[in-house]
Amino acid sequence: MDGHRITMLGTGLIGDFYTNTLHGQRGRDRVRVAYSRSESRGAAFRERWDIPESTTDLAAAVTHPETDVVVVGLPNHLHEEAVGLAASAGKAVLCTKPLGRTADEARRMLETVERAGVFGGYLEDLCYTPKTLKAIRSVEAGAIGDVTWVRSRETHPGPHSAWFWDGRLTGGGAIIDLGCHCIEIIRNFVGKGNRPVEVLCHTDTLVHPIADEDNAIALIRFESGGIGQFEVSWTFRGGMDLRDEVAGTHGTIWMDHFLRTGFEMFTAGGGGGYVAEKAETAAGWLFPVGDEVSELGYVDMFSDMFRAIDEGRAPQETFYDGYVVNSIMDACYRSAKHHAWESVALDWRGGITARIASNPETYEGQVVIKREILPDGRHKLILKDPATGDFTDRVVAGA
Amino acid sequence: MDGHRITMLGTGLIGDFYTNTLHGQRGRDRVRVAYSRSESRGAAFRERWDIPESTTDLAAAVTHPETDVVVVGLPNHLHEEAVGLAASAGKAVLCTKPLGRTADEARRMLETVERAGVFGGYLEDLCYTPKTLKAIRSVEAGAIGDVTWVRSRETHPGPHSAWFWDGRLTGGGAIIDLGCHCIEIIRNFVGKGNRPVEVLCHTDTLVHPIADEDNAIALIRFESGGIGQFEVSWTFRGGMDLRDEVAGTHGTIWMDHFLRTGFEMFTAGGGGGYVAEKAETAAGWLFPVGDEVSELGYVDMFSDMFRAIDEGRAPQETFYDGYVVNSIMDACYRSAKHHAWESVALDWRGGITARIASNPETYEGQVVIKREILPDGRHKLILKDPATGDFTDRVVAGA
Amino acid sequence: MDGHRITMLGTGLIGDFYTNTLHGQRGRDRVRVAYSRSESRGAAFRERWDIPESTTDLAAAVTHPETDVVVVGLPNHLHEEAVGLAASAGKAVLCTKPLGRTADEARRMLETVERAGVFGGYLEDLCYTPKTLKAIRSVEAGAIGDVTWVRSRETHPGPHSAWFWDGRLTGGGAIIDLGCHCIEIIRNFVGKGNRPVEVLCHTDTLVHPIADEDNAIALIRFESGGIGQFEVSWTFRGGMDLRDEVAGTHGTIWMDHFLRTGFEMFTAGGGGGYVAEKAETAAGWLFPVGDEVSELGYVDMFSDMFRAIDEGRAPQETFYDGYVVNSIMDACYRSAKHHAWESVALDWRGGITARIASNPETYEGQVVIKREILPDGRHKLILKDPATGDFTDRVVAGA
Amino acid sequence: MDGHRITMLGTGLIGDFYTNTLHGQRGRDRVRVAYSRSESRGAAFRERWDIPESTTDLAAAVTHPETDVVVVGLPNHLHEEAVGLAASAGKAVLCTKPLGRTADEARRMLETVERAGVFGGYLEDLCYTPKTLKAIRSVEAGAIGDVTWVRSRETHPGPHSAWFWDGRLTGGGAIIDLGCHCIEIIRNFVGKGNRPVEVLCHTDTLVHPIADEDNAIALIRFESGGIGQFEVSWTFRGGMDLRDEVAGTHGTIWMDHFLRTGFEMFTAGGGGGYVAEKAETAAGWLFPVGDEVSELGYVDMFSDMFRAIDEGRAPQETFYDGYVVNSIMDACYRSAKHHAWESVALDWRGGITARIASNPETYEGQVVIKREILPDGRHKLILKDPATGDFTDRVVAGA
Repeated sequence: MDGHRITMLGTGLIGDFYTNTLHGQRGRDRVRVAYSRSESRGAAFRERWDIPESTTDLAAAVTHPETDVVVVGLPNHLHEEAVGLAASAGKAVLCTKPLGRTADEARRMLETVERAGVFGGYLEDLCYTPKTLKAIRSVEAGAIGDVTWVRSRETHPGPHSAWFWDGRLTGGGAIIDLGCHCIEIIRNFVGKGNRPVEVLCHTDTLVHPIADEDNAIALIRFESGGIGQFEVSWTFRGGMDLRDEVAGTHGTIWMDHFLRTGFEMFTAGGGGGYVAEKAETAAGWLFPVGDEVSELGYVDMFSDMFRAIDEGRAPQETFYDGYVVNSIMDACYRSAKHHAWESVALDWRGGITARIASNPETYEGQVVIKREILPDGRHKLILKDPATGDFTDRVVAGA
Repeated sequence: MDGHRITMLGTGLIGDFYTNTLHGQRGRDRVRVAYSRSESRGAAFRERWDIPESTTDLAAAVTHPETDVVVVGLPNHLHEEAVGLAASAGKAVLCTKPLGRTADEARRMLETVERAGVFGGYLEDLCYTPKTLKAIRSVEAGAIGDVTWVRSRETHPGPHSAWFWDGRLTGGGAIIDLGCHCIEIIRNFVGKGNRPVEVLCHTDTLVHPIADEDNAIALIRFESGGIGQFEVSWTFRGGMDLRDEVAGTHGTIWMDHFLRTGFEMFTAGGGGGYVAEKAETAAGWLFPVGDEVSELGYVDMFSDMFRAIDEGRAPQETFYDGYVVNSIMDACYRSAKHHAWESVALDWRGGITARIASNPETYEGQVVIKREILPDGRHKLILKDPATGDFTDRVVAGA
Repeated sequence: MDGHRITMLGTGLIGDFYTNTLHGQRGRDRVRVAYSRSESRGAAFRERWDIPESTTDLAAAVTHPETDVVVVGLPNHLHEEAVGLAASAGKAVLCTKPLGRTADEARRMLETVERAGVFGGYLEDLCYTPKTLKAIRSVEAGAIGDVTWVRSRETHPGPHSAWFWDGRLTGGGAIIDLGCHCIEIIRNFVGKGNRPVEVLCHTDTLVHPIADEDNAIALIRFESGGIGQFEVSWTFRGGMDLRDEVAGTHGTIWMDHFLRTGFEMFTAGGGGGYVAEKAETAAGWLFPVGDEVSELGYVDMFSDMFRAIDEGRAPQETFYDGYVVNSIMDACYRSAKHHAWESVALDWRGGITARIASNPETYEGQVVIKREILPDGRHKLILKDPATGDFTDRVVAGA
Repeated sequence: MDGHRITMLGTGLIGDFYTNTLHGQRGRDRVRVAYSRSESRGAAFRERWDIPESTTDLAAAVTHPETDVVVVGLPNHLHEEAVGLAASAGKAVLCTKPLGRTADEARRMLETVERAGVFGGYLEDLCYTPKTLKAIRSVEAGAIGDVTWVRSRETHPGPHSAWFWDGRLTGGGAIIDLGCHCIEIIRNFVGKGNRPVEVLCHTDTLVHPIADEDNAIALIRFESGGIGQFEVSWTFRGGMDLRDEVAGTHGTIWMDHFLRTGFEMFTAGGGGGYVAEKAETAAGWLFPVGDEVSELGYVDMFSDMFRAIDEGRAPQETFYDGYVVNSIMDACYRSAKHHAWESVALDWRGGITARIASNPETYEGQVVIKREILPDGRHKLILKDPATGDFTDRVVAGA
């Protein structure tokens, strides 16, 4: 029944979300020490979350004798160093998204934890939202047949912290910030063993005076023939738009994680305060989210990570997944630059996935293209003559 | 960091929901012993939730030396005995809704825990849904002004277990099953210190061949002038409809807890399994809920209860609240029987609430009934002459 | 293919909506003359809608030699006089809602048109919205079984014109303005031949400094046992809330006519202008309606009226319906005043409606209360022993 | 006030929709003669819609002495012949979508009507839905700033008629059937004078045993930098998904035209009949549309066409627009084949559109990347130092 004692690296927005989750409800895991580059921010964080210690010494935080897990919630350019230190200390390491700024960086981190034999968890919260987890189980159970298309969209008016805007520190713009979420959501639906083959990506910088993209759209073609599509933006107006759509040969799934979740409020103003992450207004029609750390997946994510550590198994999201995501993002940036489809360069550990296939029904020697049930119970068939290629329709008695 | 060890009384649907919550995620509280009237159901429950012991001896379960909290998840007619035993044992007792079958029964339970000086928590989950908690905070912060009206609706096609249908065991029909939720939701929004003055209730038995009501609607008038309205039904078709609406002088809140929460699935069938509580179909358009124990409030409810025990404070929902709810339900049954408004008989511990009041603006000696902003920025006023009672409209420059 | 030539009485908001409808799209009916109490408003209206003539002489407008239909779009206290003039002129008369300020007034108008033998149409637009018309047909076809409950809600922040606020001219407050819509919507769903037996109504004046109600809720019990419930308010915040819900023994219908119709817009401001009737803001999240005159029922309403005239049949909504609505509103006001259920006093022309009844299934001599299909295909029955009144559950093979 | 007399070519589903619209409500235009390739289908159509004559002689139908407008509702491969005959007869011709099977074909039809000097209207109904019309006006008025991205989606389980499936007759698969709608919707939002520069399209045949695409996604880059994105499918499950999303620098628009329009029905079955175009089930949760011919744009489309004829002006959608759409579809097919971006080959009549541009605000010599309003009213600025390229954040007093 004993929980874990955690080194938390980083005390920004993501550190707050993580610690809020860990210390929330009746959790048994606790942050024991927090590292911040700034002493005052570290102290404020320590007080805010009732943490015994904070420090500005990264190595000391990682090697703290009473912690067994290191959580990396630092800006992207600091991930590799932190992961290296944790691996050297022989501790489990959980790293926020994106794993690296490039696939090369991610691959080195993957190799580091594998060589050290420590647990490596990839903190991809949006693959753990309760809706997403239930939807993945439905898809795996066959509820929607073969997945033909997944759309994952994450857009908002732009990040809150300065470092997010500096591509030198992050590795890019909206793709590196938001696309990493979408890509891994897509992989969970098309199947993680389904190889991403090639990518077409369009990027542009339309609103913010920055060097990196503030808008991007990409298509990812998987080995099965299924298509992943992501849309990311730092110029969306109206809050944070987090939606996923999954199409299958036998069904459809639509998920809205943020702006339309069955909670709607109109206020003439007054009684303000925090509405929801990235909310743009404090009056008029507002769309709060009930419990953000639960609905955005943080609760289930940490449960999976700590259980996986306890049970000696891999978590749902691993450093290898993080590396795959970086590889796809690399291909996206190459595609945008070359204005062409680009192959995904990848050390593939998954298997081979067969192409989506249907066995067409035949009727009196003709191929049935479509079968509809008419109001009177009879069936209307669209038939194709295999010899001539001609199409006809025909109404027959119901099955 | 140590959690509580719990005696769980009852191993039906509610026992499952409770234990699922307690043992879920990274919780530190555990069920130590489960009581069931049936040895085989107890054993199955023990195995299902990895509980050390089960027993058919109620007293033994309650007085188990290793538990400090007793959770009552039994049919209504067994609440009083269980609460009495727990109080005698000097343990904290958390009792499922409704507290009693009547206000008299509830009042005796309230007196029992108060006399024994033990912690009494009222397990009213729907007052703890994340949406509801956030909405209550918004209302308390003034976001929608004074609350004029609350609608709380809970309807579904009827309960799963036989005992629910037997009014001798439960104390009634859909009101005692579902109305108790609605009443306490309403109280949280109009303010718990706002006295429920009188009730008008209509009941009918339209579909099921039972003696108790399968449909009911009630109006509750509070001291402030605010109105609570609940609609409960065991004959609703389409799943479980759980919605709340709150109207205030400066805003509006709408919450949908179950059928429209941003998760929509169409399936041609196949890959079935559990969709959601009270779902009616396994194909076509379905509306699952992400994480039911979170979204229905169980997680936050137990967090509040155990924290309150740890901190020596009262929880959000107390035995007194349960007693108030039973008093209002008693008035509902009397109203339905007498076909008239009925006073709520109640040992009131709250204070006095002033009537909702507005200070009408005046303009050149006339009362401003309404002020609208026109597209051109000017304001249109509807004015009432206090002398003649005549109404006019007038367009003036914007403020 | 020739259309009708119309006398339009009244040039306010409702006259605009009516004429916009008649002159919109490719309609063949035209307003020939408009009457306004104010010469300047009449002239502006004439120009706005390209109408040959306007006048301030009511009798001249009604008896205009080139018109065959009189549309009454005047304040409530002027309906009776206008209807009388039209009947004397032997012209078809279409009167806006509510027909009268009281049932007595409405009954006199009904008698006037019947005595004169002229066509009398009741302009109740919200019974003609395309959604409502299609829903009524579904209910009549049996799609949701017997109707057990109808909720009709119309709320907004209050009317635009001064005269609406003066109960001396209108006959009341929010009930007379909005409740008339709700009542007739309810009647269309429970069946127009289903007698309204009694009414319970609660009213209050919570926000606006007026003598009449700005909020009201009512329950209407019909002969079948079905319940109508209406909620009207002049204090709602967030726009105009127009929703109907219908519950039946075999189904459910939900309609949203205004705030959530699949059209959502966020704007940071700019490009303003008209959003929708009763919209409160011009920035933030807005919910416009596509084509208001179509979606609010005006188009289908006038089509039915003119076709009925052409075909010599009664329209869907007649002066008798208007009289029934006024009779129910009278009962509402009496109920609110007496704080008690009140019978609906009514010269009833409908028939007798049987009570909603179900023939309970039996299983081995026991009454089946509920039958559920389990995930494994078996059926779970809740059974009642008719001798003892005891309930049990039992799992049996699927049908 | 006289209407038009129409030759209707084609008596299939589209002929029904068109005639239903023309003869519906109080319209003054009438179909005078219908042409069908089959005498029996023509006769049934004539009777269904109360039309004086039907014929199997195409030329006779077009040159009928009593008609002045020819509506082409024939399969795609018959459009060019029909347009030619109508132009020769000197009559106005309204042609259903897509105009041609290829840009060449479309261009010849455009030249034919221009040479003959007859009115040519392109019957693109989905650009005329009431929501779309209102949204276009909002965009033109500046409500959402510059349009950066438009998503138009049309997917369903596949067409009803055999000929749709035969690419030899239609010119393609889902793109030619559905993509034509999406493209023209997109053009209306980005601005018709905004040149479509290049296209990236991915197609696949995943479910139906046909030679043409049953799924396609495309990106269209416009001169302004704005991106159009369409998704079309004949394999979607759950009905007909018709949604558009528009993102702008200052706002957002979301439109759902079919599956979620505020009309929801659950039925246990029974009382069936027609639910909505492409509906897949007759029980469970259903999502009907109120008035399909209005909500799908047919009513406003014909109003615009006939008014344009009467007023001697061009309609909103012209043969030139149809030609542009075909040109973009040609580029889509080339792109899918070549697996690369393709230029849109086009005889461009529009002007030049400037690139979307923002004038970044500066603050003390630094570039303001983003400005957020904090709960306490102060503003948080993300700043970029133009010299170093470094980013910082800074909290300042509110404006």
